[in-house]
Amino acid sequence: MQKKISLYENIYSEQDNLAKKINEFLTEKDIFTINILGGAGAGKTSTLIQTIKRLNDIKSYVIEGDIESDIDTKTLTALGVTAFQINTGGNCHLNPIMVDTILKKIDICQKGVLFIENIGNLVCPADVIIGEHIKILICSIPEGSDKPYKYPLAFQKADAIILNKMDLKPYIDFDSDFFYNGVRALNDEAKIFEVCSKTGEGFDSFIEWLRKEIYNQNFLL
Amino acid sequence: MQKKISLYENIYSEQDNLAKKINEFLTEKDIFTINILGGAGAGKTSTLIQTIKRLNDIKSYVIEGDIESDIDTKTLTALGVTAFQINTGGNCHLNPIMVDTILKKIDICQKGVLFIENIGNLVCPADVIIGEHIKILICSIPEGSDKPYKYPLAFQKADAIILNKMDLKPYIDFDSDFFYNGVRALNDEAKIFEVCSKTGEGFDSFIEWLRKEIYNQNFLL
Repeated sequence: MQKKISLYENIYSEQDNLAKKINEFLTEKDIFTINILGGAGAGKTSTLIQTIKRLNDIKSYVIEGDIESDIDTKTLTALGVTAFQINTGGNCHLNPIMVDTILKKIDICQKGVLFIENIGNLVCPADVIIGEHIKILICSIPEGSDKPYKYPLAFQKADAIILNKMDLKPYIDFDSDFFYNGVRALNDEAKIFEVCSKTGEGFDSFIEWLRKEIYNQNFLL
Repeated sequence: MQKKISLYENIYSEQDNLAKKINEFLTEKDIFTINILGGAGAGKTSTLIQTIKRLNDIKSYVIEGDIESDIDTKTLTALGVTAFQINTGGNCHLNPIMVDTILKKIDICQKGVLFIENIGNLVCPADVIIGEHIKILICSIPEGSDKPYKYPLAFQKADAIILNKMDLKPYIDFDSDFFYNGVRALNDEAKIFEVCSKTGEGFDSFIEWLRKEIYNQNFLL
């Protein structure tokens, strides 16, 4: 008798197992890990900078995922943030193998928060776990209010959604009701925070939520 | 003696062969075909609408690629454009099989221009030919001036680059020199057009270029 084997299922379950191992490793080290998702240019790095500034009583680490370049890692390092770069070549999302490889090379002794900034892409990273405790989706109003309808998975999987570039609201046709209805049809629970990562406006309530989330997951940072 | 076979190479070359067949089919039918690339929310559909309005002496067809939803197809159809929808489910780019399947189902007897709007994603669609005569990349200034450095392939492969949402320039830190230098390091030849697809500003020179391109490729539309 022959047994059918699905190659894809096997690859994914192996990767998921590795992601679970990474998650256990990070939990044990008291490192609360956030997978940051969002399209190209949504403002992931500037949101990170505003967040890290406000968590200055906690050690922050950043792993920057990019197809190419280390522009964001240089920006973060210049600000004194402990940041590491993964360049995927052409790969459209981070995977647990990449995260595992870099975690084995870097020094993360101190407990704290690890932000993993995924590739700028609303599609592919949404479906892959890489060891995180929560997923945060960053979108920006110039991208348009129809994004939850067109890229549902990222909105479904997010624990929190940051709606960035609110300073541009007066100059953009952004239909807030359409956006919120789209999100709520997919995800009842995710908190939504309207911010401007250029000025820092709106970050206080996001940081309050994040601190609670860290505490609720039993991390004493 | 064993011969090494790369599975990926075989899949890709089969798909590339199909793309070439699609290209021949469309060329024979006098349908000049444009693969429209760009991140989520760059303004691909609104750019299409402005373009089609200005090509009103030529028959236009649109194939809309989306993960889910038919929002853009409905918008185009309401404007009287002949538009067809491909929903890829979770797939992050269109492939020649999808395009071939839809071309077999639809009626495109009249010569003209076919716009294929790819999935909103700066990464994956850049590497796949789907039968097009040219590729146009649409990006928008709120996405930031570092995009050519972070997503080089899309910029390398584009025949023209449309820089959209120029109306937001006064409110955004967009470094034009950095953007242009980044593009030019990758692609000497692509024309770059600064436009606002909301108002139609800047479209005249793009349309002039597009008409020349159609003519230069021996399409008499």
